[in-house]
Amino acid sequence: MLKKTERLSLVEQVVIQIEHLIESGHWQIGDHLPAEMQLMQEFGVSRNTLREAIRALVHAGLLETKQGSGTIVKSISAFGAALHRQVEKSSVMETLEVRLALEREAAQLAAARRDDLDVEAMTESIQLCKAASEKGNVQEFLQADIVFHKAMVKASHNKMLERLYENITEPLQSSIEEVMVAGDCFNYSEEIHYELLEAIKEQDVQAAISYVNQYINDFREKIKRIQED
Amino acid sequence: MLKKTERLSLVEQVVIQIEHLIESGHWQIGDHLPAEMQLMQEFGVSRNTLREAIRALVHAGLLETKQGSGTIVKSISAFGAALHRQVEKSSVMETLEVRLALEREAAQLAAARRDDLDVEAMTESIQLCKAASEKGNVQEFLQADIVFHKAMVKASHNKMLERLYENITEPLQSSIEEVMVAGDCFNYSEEIHYELLEAIKEQDVQAAISYVNQYINDFREKIKRIQED
Repeated sequence: MLKKTERLSLVEQVVIQIEHLIESGHWQIGDHLPAEMQLMQEFGVSRNTLREAIRALVHAGLLETKQGSGTIVKSISAFGAALHRQVEKSSVMETLEVRLALEREAAQLAAARRDDLDVEAMTESIQLCKAASEKGNVQEFLQADIVFHKAMVKASHNKMLERLYENITEPLQSSIEEVMVAGDCFNYSEEIHYELLEAIKEQDVQAAISYVNQYINDFREKIKRIQED
Repeated sequence: MLKKTERLSLVEQVVIQIEHLIESGHWQIGDHLPAEMQLMQEFGVSRNTLREAIRALVHAGLLETKQGSGTIVKSISAFGAALHRQVEKSSVMETLEVRLALEREAAQLAAARRDDLDVEAMTESIQLCKAASEKGNVQEFLQADIVFHKAMVKASHNKMLERLYENITEPLQSSIEEVMVAGDCFNYSEEIHYELLEAIKEQDVQAAISYVNQYINDFREKIKRIQED
């Protein structure tokens, strides 16, 4: 059966081209879009068409227009932008529970599917965690820590899980930093990371799940205590 | 500290009003929007402004414009629409793994947090499953089955988990029906539902997790076998 070709409006065509330029990394988050005149020439469209396309992308959360400073890239995908807004509407505890659900599944899948590159990426980030912790640099530690978790989720070899995880984790990061600084998760996280990596390396699914559960419960308790204070 | 008021364009104001009418259920999925003339009068805007707002919402996936048949409501939220598109881009197995991650977390939270209304909703849907199964009506069984799973996720009392679950489950439903019809999950699902409900009722977190894991593994095996065929 032949599929009916959808006729796209000029606006929709420009929208798709801009989305593609953003998703492919040609324009990155924080980048300014070229001047209106230049874009009109490049896309071969009128000012009205261009403006309407940009407004559609502003509405979808991919672009942001600020008076006086032009249009900048705000998010690399509509999916990411929609998730960010959902996280903003939710409580830290709600978001954390979702994040942990994804992380537990990822640990299990990673133990079954990890390849050498995954193990290498996880090992490197743990070493960065260790170096930061020895220096007592909390900011640096937290950055390396998030790289570790993302590498573990990547080792699940499930792209959808990975995208969900990244887009939920990012806007949650500042809350996590608060908890980590307030509590003393410093050394604890480090040890459990080693054990978790070992379990994933050895493809020991049960051990991987049990280590994730350990640090998840610990983290949850810390958040609860801070919220009660 | 005072927050700077964002100045919204007329288009953006109309977009927000339409979103609100959809999210509040005033317009439901499949509903036709009133005629252009009427909307222009109701919102007090020009034809161009109205059209641009509608195009932005079409782009966000909330509305759909079909030549000759006007504009209909396609999704109740930008979040839902973005997730649907992500599911379309992902494989059934990937989506299923994410769904199961959410379901496992939900079972655990439900066992801790369920109230009487939750138990009632779950019990009712299980009875519908049983009635459908006795009649041998697969379609009816599957509908009751999804009501059961949604009721369990709702019992987690985590709105974000609930919204993610619903928006991932919906576009997955046709694939699940295939599996359920191809395999003979009929009676098996029913029994495990009873046991899971009992565990949640008794607030036995460990038992709830273990029943979810049981049916998840069973389901995964069935999908694998069907994909290998």
